[in-house]
Amino acid sequence: MKRYLSVAATGALVFAMSGAVSAEDKWYPSQFGKDDQAGRSNLMTPDRVKSAMKLIKQGKTVSLARTYSSKMPLFGHRVFAVRGTGGLAGGPLGDNKVTWMDDTLTAEIGQVGTQFDGLGHIGIGDKFYNGIPAKDIFGATGMKKLGMEHIKPFFTKGVLIDMVLYKGAPMDGGQEITVADMEGALKKQGMSADSIGEGDVVMFHTGWVRHWIKDNKTYNGAVPGIGIEAGRWLAKKGVVIVASDTWPVEVVPNPNPKMAFPVHQILITQNGIFIHENAATERLAAEKVYEFAYIFNPLAVEGGTGSPGNALAAY
Amino acid sequence: MKRYLSVAATGALVFAMSGAVSAEDKWYPSQFGKDDQAGRSNLMTPDRVKSAMKLIKQGKTVSLARTYSSKMPLFGHRVFAVRGTGGLAGGPLGDNKVTWMDDTLTAEIGQVGTQFDGLGHIGIGDKFYNGIPAKDIFGATGMKKLGMEHIKPFFTKGVLIDMVLYKGAPMDGGQEITVADMEGALKKQGMSADSIGEGDVVMFHTGWVRHWIKDNKTYNGAVPGIGIEAGRWLAKKGVVIVASDTWPVEVVPNPNPKMAFPVHQILITQNGIFIHENAATERLAAEKVYEFAYIFNPLAVEGGTGSPGNALAAY
Amino acid sequence: MKRYLSVAATGALVFAMSGAVSAEDKWYPSQFGKDDQAGRSNLMTPDRVKSAMKLIKQGKTVSLARTYSSKMPLFGHRVFAVRGTGGLAGGPLGDNKVTWMDDTLTAEIGQVGTQFDGLGHIGIGDKFYNGIPAKDIFGATGMKKLGMEHIKPFFTKGVLIDMVLYKGAPMDGGQEITVADMEGALKKQGMSADSIGEGDVVMFHTGWVRHWIKDNKTYNGAVPGIGIEAGRWLAKKGVVIVASDTWPVEVVPNPNPKMAFPVHQILITQNGIFIHENAATERLAAEKVYEFAYIFNPLAVEGGTGSPGNALAAY
Amino acid sequence: MKRYLSVAATGALVFAMSGAVSAEDKWYPSQFGKDDQAGRSNLMTPDRVKSAMKLIKQGKTVSLARTYSSKMPLFGHRVFAVRGTGGLAGGPLGDNKVTWMDDTLTAEIGQVGTQFDGLGHIGIGDKFYNGIPAKDIFGATGMKKLGMEHIKPFFTKGVLIDMVLYKGAPMDGGQEITVADMEGALKKQGMSADSIGEGDVVMFHTGWVRHWIKDNKTYNGAVPGIGIEAGRWLAKKGVVIVASDTWPVEVVPNPNPKMAFPVHQILITQNGIFIHENAATERLAAEKVYEFAYIFNPLAVEGGTGSPGNALAAY
Repeated sequence: MKRYLSVAATGALVFAMSGAVSAEDKWYPSQFGKDDQAGRSNLMTPDRVKSAMKLIKQGKTVSLARTYSSKMPLFGHRVFAVRGTGGLAGGPLGDNKVTWMDDTLTAEIGQVGTQFDGLGHIGIGDKFYNGIPAKDIFGATGMKKLGMEHIKPFFTKGVLIDMVLYKGAPMDGGQEITVADMEGALKKQGMSADSIGEGDVVMFHTGWVRHWIKDNKTYNGAVPGIGIEAGRWLAKKGVVIVASDTWPVEVVPNPNPKMAFPVHQILITQNGIFIHENAATERLAAEKVYEFAYIFNPLAVEGGTGSPGNALAAY
Repeated sequence: MKRYLSVAATGALVFAMSGAVSAEDKWYPSQFGKDDQAGRSNLMTPDRVKSAMKLIKQGKTVSLARTYSSKMPLFGHRVFAVRGTGGLAGGPLGDNKVTWMDDTLTAEIGQVGTQFDGLGHIGIGDKFYNGIPAKDIFGATGMKKLGMEHIKPFFTKGVLIDMVLYKGAPMDGGQEITVADMEGALKKQGMSADSIGEGDVVMFHTGWVRHWIKDNKTYNGAVPGIGIEAGRWLAKKGVVIVASDTWPVEVVPNPNPKMAFPVHQILITQNGIFIHENAATERLAAEKVYEFAYIFNPLAVEGGTGSPGNALAAY
Repeated sequence: MKRYLSVAATGALVFAMSGAVSAEDKWYPSQFGKDDQAGRSNLMTPDRVKSAMKLIKQGKTVSLARTYSSKMPLFGHRVFAVRGTGGLAGGPLGDNKVTWMDDTLTAEIGQVGTQFDGLGHIGIGDKFYNGIPAKDIFGATGMKKLGMEHIKPFFTKGVLIDMVLYKGAPMDGGQEITVADMEGALKKQGMSADSIGEGDVVMFHTGWVRHWIKDNKTYNGAVPGIGIEAGRWLAKKGVVIVASDTWPVEVVPNPNPKMAFPVHQILITQNGIFIHENAATERLAAEKVYEFAYIFNPLAVEGGTGSPGNALAAY
Repeated sequence: MKRYLSVAATGALVFAMSGAVSAEDKWYPSQFGKDDQAGRSNLMTPDRVKSAMKLIKQGKTVSLARTYSSKMPLFGHRVFAVRGTGGLAGGPLGDNKVTWMDDTLTAEIGQVGTQFDGLGHIGIGDKFYNGIPAKDIFGATGMKKLGMEHIKPFFTKGVLIDMVLYKGAPMDGGQEITVADMEGALKKQGMSADSIGEGDVVMFHTGWVRHWIKDNKTYNGAVPGIGIEAGRWLAKKGVVIVASDTWPVEVVPNPNPKMAFPVHQILITQNGIFIHENAATERLAAEKVYEFAYIFNPLAVEGGTGSPGNALAAY
């Protein structure tokens, strides 16, 4: 991640003046109490399910996850290694000659491909969501706190903001999505800022998917995305998940060269909002689906930092 | 799997007489054509989504997957090894001091814990779903055909058959669920065989979950489940997924000692029906939820033999 | 490891009086200087090679490593998962029809089976070999210091101490090997304490191998081995490696119930001596080979905490 | 491997005329009998140990393996993923506050970095060493035959052939080492073809190491190495291992465009000779060490296709 920072961290910086994320801000205890480990998945209530169902008009569904393959761009040293049994794993057994095949996967399962960042993935220094100290979380075989097993399933309203439609072209690396952009894009879709409310999932389509597998180096480099302003605006709106068709969802590099992934901290660490990366927003954009039911039951790996992002949109 | 077979396979057996699965049966090409790789996920249509939505009355959701942990019973030589970064994976970076943690998983990702068997998992001798020869499928880094990337998302009616309610007690290992049992159990729930139709998911609650983690050796041994008769009956009904709270869904050992996992072959290989194992049916049974929307977007691992079974029930 | 401790740690204990390992002892900087990361492998000199060669009289060699298989006893949550390509990994290619097979291993490669503990494996609180703070070593993809790439190859004198021969029977779990035992056993072999000198490898045969694979639970439980006294005696003698046919080499549980693996700390952390566990000492004992050339080039995994222990004895 | 073949395989080719490897040749049963699984490691006798010892004059040792790191060039889809515990794996325990760290490796352990090809790695169509059919070897958790557990330790004479010294410059990709080259290079070193005999290890230094890590794409491409003629000459001489500082040891692409890795087949499959790839021959060349004791105890992974190549040279 170092390449995205052109200035070394200096402890003396006045955070209040720069408007940056600060460990000094009053971001804990969380809005769900000091013992919470589920973040805004706590907002998933029967009422939201009922509201979201009204958005399923055609009865269509679409997977928001791209195929997981060894060709995917992987960040840093991460791996995605599937090893099939090649031949049969076993059999034939019985008069019925049952045979079978397996495959073994080694991967940062929640941090490769279309992925869903859990609450233990990102911290501010040695503090994580709800102010939990890193040392209380560390675990050699999975985190002791904030693992994926605490997250509740999602069935809620999803909103797509199609930046390609708004801009008239796919976005470029390093281009920031501002609050004004969001409002403009929503207007273009016949919607308004009021279309986004508490408990909603907001997905940004930037067109970045065009580099997926085709040019993995570019894909993993500078990307378009939301900045600090939009991140805070969304947090204030009460959204539960922010998604995009890029690897970090937020703009990289941050326009403030002293900041490294500040939106991750605003969303995950300070507000318990989840981030859904490398999402297949192109499938919704192609159908001009801007409001839909977002349905997702993350993989509950005990102590896991994330989950594959195989959510479903129904519309 | 050998321990479940008390008689060695003999090629001379007359399959027609024993009523067993046979490679000679006319089970391919599949009902979806000779090129199909999606099985009965092809039955997922907008109409079924709309019908299933009517079953979501309370707006509640429940995960059908148990937590994935190293304590889970694993079959045979399978592994589930999560390795957290223990300390920070990286950071702090920037004035905002971003820090992060990851974890790496090595596992037969689609064949451990609550799992979902794909079409390439089970064969009849050297033939797999749609009559595809094993040699055309074999792949050292994932299967060349029948991988999970071909499966369409599920949003359809789910039916729970609570055998514990019907029998008055949790079932025992080796106990077969017959068609009569199914009909009796449905009647007890105020339903009938007509409650099950094309495109439905049928889940059996046997109470076997009582051994999960508490006694993994027993859990992985002989189990209650459906036999050949019920398997064929369900296939004929047009179901798309059969699930249970046991590791193989079907009865083990099969009452016919010459048969090894014949129901897997009837469902997966011959009919393109998926099997959802170690499902958390106890959560539905506890709420007396017998009809619900079953929603699931399997993990599309290219060439994968299965997926984690983190489906969602909404009711 | 908790089960081996019957008394909770208390900071108030007077280490000097109990004779226990203490972070307060003057054990760093190391005898090889404050920057050393190679420990006593630094003692491997041409002279020792020449001396050791004189012990190769018959021209025979024997592997000191047991076969690595999935049947091995593994400590705690460790894994050893080999996944073969099952069928061909590739080919046939060319007119010569070349075909090939691979296999993938997931394992704590230096901490399973016959293994060799490196200098970063064991610490005293947050201090490791040479007083290096844990925080300077931690690395999500391997240790930043003290990795196996720093260790020099071994070609030196090896001494087997056959405790089974001395005691007349295989040793029991929890039985301590004292300095008197060592001297007695050496005498029985026609040797003396002077047979052990600087740069030597000392291997203890306890007969514990009798439980290997046959009873893995017992194998991984309480074991015979050297205690604090013998550990210090060996360290003072200048040995470079201590080995045994048990999983921890040292006696477990320690006779002092407040101590957990203190000999690991004396050898590795305080003295830079390596520990060779689950070594196939039975092969030397069977041949009554008590002095031999010990030859080993550990696997130089960058940042690795250990190596497989596939050393060779030549005699 | 496909890129190294410019002509598609045609079954009709007359092997006898092209001088190519052929499954029709009389290469099995092996010289060690029809049941042998150890290949030419069977030639390791006490006499060879005694002879090799005479080559250890200075008492120096050098590792023939390069450091194993994530920066290494990896062939095809292979992985090398070390995951350290990052923080402590456990502890502190006891009054002595023992703490520990581990690391987990996922890799084609015998097929990455400095590596040693076993007898099951390469076949001729569906036949492997000793004529064993592929179907008798296939195993989802390791090969059923020809695994590394059958190989005997090596302690024998090693000969370095320094092609860089001979040619006056590092060799180029695709450059073949012929028998005449070998004889010329040996002469330059004051030796002759008679310096190589039964039971010897022959290592070629080509200078290819110059691309290691610095330019992995080039490293994994076309390389200098021995061709079919030299391979057969070495096999006839009775050598047990052939090594080089390149990934395949043999010349790639083969000058005969219809051949893919034919020398692998001549050495491994037809003659039971092992191949030691990516060997650190530069260390011997730098010291002008042309004859030495080659000492190696391969990692006995049950059913493994290869081993890390952490052999030792003593001189």
